[in-house]
Order: sequence, then C-alpha cells, then structure tokens
Amino acid sequence: MHDRHPTAQVVTLDEHMFLVDCGEGTQIQMNRYKIRRSRIEYIFISHLHGDHYFGLAGLLNSYGLNGRTEDLWLFAPAQLQEILELQFRVSDTILPYKIHFRALENEGLLVDEKKLTVSCFKVTHRIPTWGFLFREKEKPKKLVPEKLREYSIPASFYHHLKEGSNYTMRDGTVIMNEWVTQPANPRRSYAYCADTIFDESISEKIFGSDLVYHEATYLDDLKERAASRFHSTSRQAATIALKAHAKKLLIGHFSSKYEALDDFLTEASSVFQNVELAMEGVTYTI
Amino acid sequence: MHDRHPTAQVVTLDEHMFLVDCGEGTQIQMNRYKIRRSRIEYIFISHLHGDHYFGLAGLLNSYGLNGRTEDLWLFAPAQLQEILELQFRVSDTILPYKIHFRALENEGLLVDEKKLTVSCFKVTHRIPTWGFLFREKEKPKKLVPEKLREYSIPASFYHHLKEGSNYTMRDGTVIMNEWVTQPANPRRSYAYCADTIFDESISEKIFGSDLVYHEATYLDDLKERAASRFHSTSRQAATIALKAHAKKLLIGHFSSKYEALDDFLTEASSVFQNVELAMEGVTYTI
Repeated sequence: MHDRHPTAQVVTLDEHMFLVDCGEGTQIQMNRYKIRRSRIEYIFISHLHGDHYFGLAGLLNSYGLNGRTEDLWLFAPAQLQEILELQFRVSDTILPYKIHFRALENEGLLVDEKKLTVSCFKVTHRIPTWGFLFREKEKPKKLVPEKLREYSIPASFYHHLKEGSNYTMRDGTVIMNEWVTQPANPRRSYAYCADTIFDESISEKIFGSDLVYHEATYLDDLKERAASRFHSTSRQAATIALKAHAKKLLIGHFSSKYEALDDFLTEASSVFQNVELAMEGVTYTI
Repeated sequence: MHDRHPTAQVVTLDEHMFLVDCGEGTQIQMNRYKIRRSRIEYIFISHLHGDHYFGLAGLLNSYGLNGRTEDLWLFAPAQLQEILELQFRVSDTILPYKIHFRALENEGLLVDEKKLTVSCFKVTHRIPTWGFLFREKEKPKKLVPEKLREYSIPASFYHHLKEGSNYTMRDGTVIMNEWVTQPANPRRSYAYCADTIFDESISEKIFGSDLVYHEATYLDDLKERAASRFHSTSRQAATIALKAHAKKLLIGHFSSKYEALDDFLTEASSVFQNVELAMEGVTYTI
C-alpha cells in the first residue's frame, strides 16, 4: 500500500488504442512518452484504489480543454461515475465530448470491435477489482498467389478461401483450401490481471493468452504479507502464467520497499521462463 | 483552460509549512524537489478546478500509507469534503491521521498560530474562489545589550522592553524604549491571489503585502479573452500589486499557448517594477 506506484497501461491493437487504469500523473507520463492520448477510445479502470484512477479526472478534463469531440467509452466500477459527476459538477465543467460510462458488474464481453474483443473477469482484491482480456478475432487465411493461378481459381471466390472454404471446379474436382492458402496469423491476446491475491481460477479465465500481465507486489518470502494485503508474489504470478499456458508473462506493481528488482525476475523465471519486468515507459509487443 | 498547468505552492514560515493548492502530480513534484511533505500541517485549496486539487487525494492517501499520525488542517470549498469522503469510502480507506476539514465560507481568519496568521479573501473566478494571506504577527523589539548595561536595566524587565515599554528608574528617570532597543524585524506577509478576473478590490484586501502572487494567464492584448474566462493579464496583475503597495510581485499560471514568457515580465514591469515569474521548483524568499 505504501507499496504502490500509480498504474496505467496503454494497449494498441490495429487502429484501436485502449487505456487500462489511470493513476495520478498518467497524462503527464503520456506526454513524456509522446503517446497520442487523443487516440484513446476506451478506458478501463480495474478498481477504485487511488493509484489506479486518480489521474483519470485530469485526463478527461484535458480532453475537454483540448477540444476533443470523439466519444469515449469508460468501463469501471459503478461508483466512479458518481465521483466524476461530482467533480465535474463542482467545477461547473461541461465536456465537449460524450463519455459512455459502463459500470463493471458481470464477467464477459465489454467491447466487440471488428477485429477484436475486450472482456472483463473478476480478480480478488480488498475491494471489487476486474481484470481485462484483449483478444483478436479470427483472422482470414492468407492466399498463395501462384497456387491460385495454378488452379485457375476465380478472384470472386478468394474471400471464401480466406474463410477456409474449399473450391469445387466445374468438372467436380475439389481444390482443398490448404493447397492454396497459408494459415492465418495467430490471434493475439493480452490479459491484464490488475491487483489481486493469488487466485488460481484466474489462470482459467485467461487461458491461452499470449501475454499476461500479473502483479508481483512482493517476493515469495513475504507471501503471508502479500495475502493479507490481497496482493501476489513473483512466484505466484509465474504460477498463474504457467497454469494459463501463457506465452509470456509481464510482472509489475512491485512494492517500493524493494530497491532492486532482479530477484523478482529470478524468482518468477524459476517457475515460468519467459518473463519480463513491466517498466515505466516501455512498450511490449505481442 | 487548456491554458492551465497544475498549481501548488509550498509556503514555509518559521517552523510551519503550508501547502496552497494541490494540482495533479504535486506529491511527485514534492519528491523531486525534496520537499519534506510530511511537515505540512495546513493545506489550503483555492477553488475546485481540477488543476488546483486533483493531486490532493493522492497526497492524503500517501500520508496514510506512510503512516502519518499528525493531524492535518484542510481549508477548502465545502464540496471538497464530499469528494474526498466518497473517494475514501469507495476505496475502503481509513486514514491513520485526522483531517480537520474547514469549509471556506466567509472572508477572515483561518489560522492563528503563535507567530503568524492565515486569512482568506474572495477573488472573482468562474466558480467560488479564495485567496490566502499569510502574515507574521508583531515581533518583539531587539534589545541592545550595551545600552541595557549602560542604564542598568534589570533582566526581569527585558520582556517589557521587547514589547515597547519605557523603563522608569527608582529616581523617576524614564529610559525611553528606543534608547535601548532596535526596531523589530518587519512583519512579513504573502498574498496568494489564486485564479481571478482583474478585480481591483483585491488590492485592498492584500494591501501592504511584501510578496503578492497574482495569476497572469494572458498578455494584455488578450484582456477580453482573459475577462471572458475569468482570468487576468500580466498588466492587470501588476496593477493589483501597484495599488496594493506590494514590495514584490510574482506572476504565474501562464496560458500554455505562450511558448516564451519574456513578454509577461516586460509587460508587468512596465507597471510594477519588482516582478518575477513563478517558475516550477523555485523558492522565493521574502
């Protein structure tokens, strides 16, 4: 707890930009790292501890002052709406853009865009807290031009091939889809597990994610303290990633009591090899 | 408005430390400039525009996380209490120290310490806004040891001399106070005028202040814009200082539309000579 650094993550997928949590100073950090914050369409707030949302009102204000007109979708615990409305009311603020506030109540789909979805899942913290799962949708198969020519497949059929259909020639010969296509790029996914006690059920909720962010507030010798404060250890974060069959783990939210972070990496990688420390201002590509 | 930088000023007088306004990131800046924020006993919030208070909840939280036990006095528009209580409630936060919330309602005395007072006065902004006046109390005169010996004045009478009394010898001879003392150090004072439209009545409220901080959001060629946004120009700030017979003027809160600030200084000093720009991280001594 005096163990907290303000948290904020920017997730970009295709043309979409998402903000996950918004601790104090987030807008200042986004300026520093030259993130075009105006592009953000969706904001997700995991829970209402200040280090995860005290920067939000300032960001929403700045959008207004900078003349934003694009709608914004805000997913958060219901009480955040009350806080923001009160803050806007006392400052006599009328924003020039619309905020679609969506209270987090049930696990499931939040965003359904053309190429991706975002869903939320419960984690276990001292107050109601949510994780978020970003997942690309099924992608089209890739056509192999020389094979298309070889089998004389008409261009009008290409979109069926991309979706996996076979092609039947006039003489009845079937051209198998896999003869003329290559597999689609894999669907990428990212799971943000927010602040949570060690909770193995999370590994099911995020199963198969390419990248998993999981908090690691303490090292495992302080696992009792971690549990009592509804936080996790580095080993526990790695255990979640292992059970989730994740490709890669990102750990963060380290207690400020630790000066060096090497031990977090050592401890986690003894359980799950592909692990990295989440560092300020760094971009992680899936 | 997109014209705002977060505002916060730390005022120290004798052993007291005061915080005036607390924009987003104030606690981070205090760390950067190695200000011992734990020493702050009194916080004053001029008005409820976010750039003047969005850093407060984070600071109050951090005090709690760092185990503060000393009481804190918070003077602010009444609605701030509602905002803070809501934020603490949703995060299930119980602070380990007591906040004495005092709603700003009338002009007058807020703090009456041994050596100083703090009072508030109304300024004119888009929403209710307050300025703050810090003023040392009357100080004791300084004794001149060789003169005390020359007139054989008993030590038991010294504290009367410090308060300005004359000393009457047994034979009825009167030793005039000014023969054995030097004048007290002057009472220092600082007036923080917050965000305000040009309002000449302010100069009366802060009359005779040594140092005056007055906002100067625009240069005078934009005085219509300044007025429409309830802000002031550099020339207007200087006019207030001049009419207040201030010793020195500090201007700040410059619109972000201006890249260079030299013109603010030139414009103000054409009206009032002893003027300086309020810059981030700089200490001004009275």
